[in-house]
Amino acid sequence: MHVHVALGPAEFPGLALAGRSALVVDVLRATTTVVAAFAAGCRRVVPAGDVEAARARAGEFPVAERLLAGEQGGEPIPGFDLGNSPLEYVPERVHGRTIVLTTTNGTAAMLVAGAAARGAVAALVNVEAAAHWCAAQTRDVVVLCAGEKGDFALEDAVCAGLVVERLLAARPEAVASDAATAAWRLGQHYASRLDRLSVEARWARRLAARGRAADLQACLRLGGASLVPELAGGVIERGRAVLAATADAGDGSAA
Amino acid sequence: MHVHVALGPAEFPGLALAGRSALVVDVLRATTTVVAAFAAGCRRVVPAGDVEAARARAGEFPVAERLLAGEQGGEPIPGFDLGNSPLEYVPERVHGRTIVLTTTNGTAAMLVAGAAARGAVAALVNVEAAAHWCAAQTRDVVVLCAGEKGDFALEDAVCAGLVVERLLAARPEAVASDAATAAWRLGQHYASRLDRLSVEARWARRLAARGRAADLQACLRLGGASLVPELAGGVIERGRAVLAATADAGDGSAA
Repeated sequence: MHVHVALGPAEFPGLALAGRSALVVDVLRATTTVVAAFAAGCRRVVPAGDVEAARARAGEFPVAERLLAGEQGGEPIPGFDLGNSPLEYVPERVHGRTIVLTTTNGTAAMLVAGAAARGAVAALVNVEAAAHWCAAQTRDVVVLCAGEKGDFALEDAVCAGLVVERLLAARPEAVASDAATAAWRLGQHYASRLDRLSVEARWARRLAARGRAADLQACLRLGGASLVPELAGGVIERGRAVLAATADAGDGSAA
Repeated sequence: MHVHVALGPAEFPGLALAGRSALVVDVLRATTTVVAAFAAGCRRVVPAGDVEAARARAGEFPVAERLLAGEQGGEPIPGFDLGNSPLEYVPERVHGRTIVLTTTNGTAAMLVAGAAARGAVAALVNVEAAAHWCAAQTRDVVVLCAGEKGDFALEDAVCAGLVVERLLAARPEAVASDAATAAWRLGQHYASRLDRLSVEARWARRLAARGRAADLQACLRLGGASLVPELAGGVIERGRAVLAATADAGDGSAA
C-alpha cells in the first residue's frame, strides 16, 4: 500500500485518483459537520459545489425530507436551513433527513474524491475510525486536505498526519510519500497540543474572531466517533461503524 | 512582514510574487550546488529551463568562460561540462566561470522566482545566512520549495522550516502562513536528526540507490556558508556575505 497526503487543493488537479481510495479532510468545519450529521442520524449528505448546485440537487428530494445547508465565506447562506457548524446538527434537526451541503472548501474536495474508487470523510472527531477505514483498504490511499480557499490549512494537514500515523502502525508495510511523512511528523507535533491549532491555524483564528469559539472546541479535539461516512455515486452515506463506539463517542451510535 | 512557504511546485502558478521577496530551496541538489559553485568562486549561474534553453543561453557567453551544467532525471547530461553534484563544483573547475545550469526542479523554481522583486537561493548549507537575508527584507517573503517532479519533497520543506524558524526569531512581528508554520514545525522535528532525511525523503533514497551517498552527505547537513546567491535579471550572482564566515564555512569566503 502507498499512502499519500495531498497537502492542499493546489495539488488536486494533478492527482490520479482512479483505482485509489480517497479520504477527505476539512476539520474546520465541513467534514466535522458531516460526521456530526450522521452521528445525529441524518440519512445522507449530498455535497454540492456552490449555492446554485445545492438548490438544484435539493430538488431531487421531497421538500419534507431534505435540508439545505452550508456556508459562504464562513457565514450561513440566506434561505438555507442549516449553516456549517457541527453544533447545529442535532437529532431534532437532521434525523432521517437528506442534507444538501455546500461549503467553500470541504464539499469541493468531496466532489474531487468522487473520482476515486472509494471515498470517505474524516475529521479529528473520527480520526481513529478513519485510520481503520484506510487500513482496511486494498488500494493505495490518498488523503485530500481541503485547505482554505485554495491554500494549505494547518489543521487539515495535522488531521491527515494523525490518520497516517495510525495507518502506518496498522499497516507497517505501507510506503508513505514525502507529503504523508511530513503530515505524520506534523501530527506528532500537534497530537499533544491540539488546542494550539486554535491560535496557530489561520482559519481557526478567523472563526474565533467571528464568535465561533464553540465550533473550534467541537472541531479541534480527538473524538471517539466510530463512523466513517462514505462517498458513493456523488452522495455521502453513513458507512459502517469501523470501531466500537467509545464512552466519548459523541456519534449517537450508542443511543 | 508576512512569511509564506510554497510547499511544492503545484502551488507556484497561483503565487503572486510581484512586490515580494522569494527564496528558492532545492536541497537535493540544485540550490546546494549553486551555493557550492559560488563558494568555489564561480562568476555567475544562469538558470535554464531545459537542455535546449541551456545551450541557447550558453551562447551568450564566450566559450572559454562558460560551463554547461546540470542533470536530467538525476543523471549528468551528455556533452555538458558538469553534473548537478555540489562535489564537482571545486575552484579548479568553476573559478571565474559562468555556469549555465538546468535541472529538473531547482532551475524551474529559480525561473519562477524571477517574478519576485528580489530573489535568492538557499539550501541547508547556507540556511543561517539565508534566514538573515530573509530577515533583512523589507517585503513579504515567500520560500519556494522546488520539490521533485512537481511533487512535495520532504527535504525542501524541512530546509524552508529551518529558515522560517530563524526568521521568526529575528523578526518576531512577522506573521507566518499556515504552510510556513507547518514547515517550521517540520524543521523543528528534523533539526536534530537531519540524517533521517536520507531515509525518509524519497529522492534521497533514490539518489543513494544510484551511488550518490556522498552527495547526500554534502547536501543534508547544516553548513556555515555565509553567502546567499541572489537572482537579478534572470542571472544568479554571488550576493553579499550576510554572515561572517565560520570555521565550517565550506564556502571559500575565508580563503
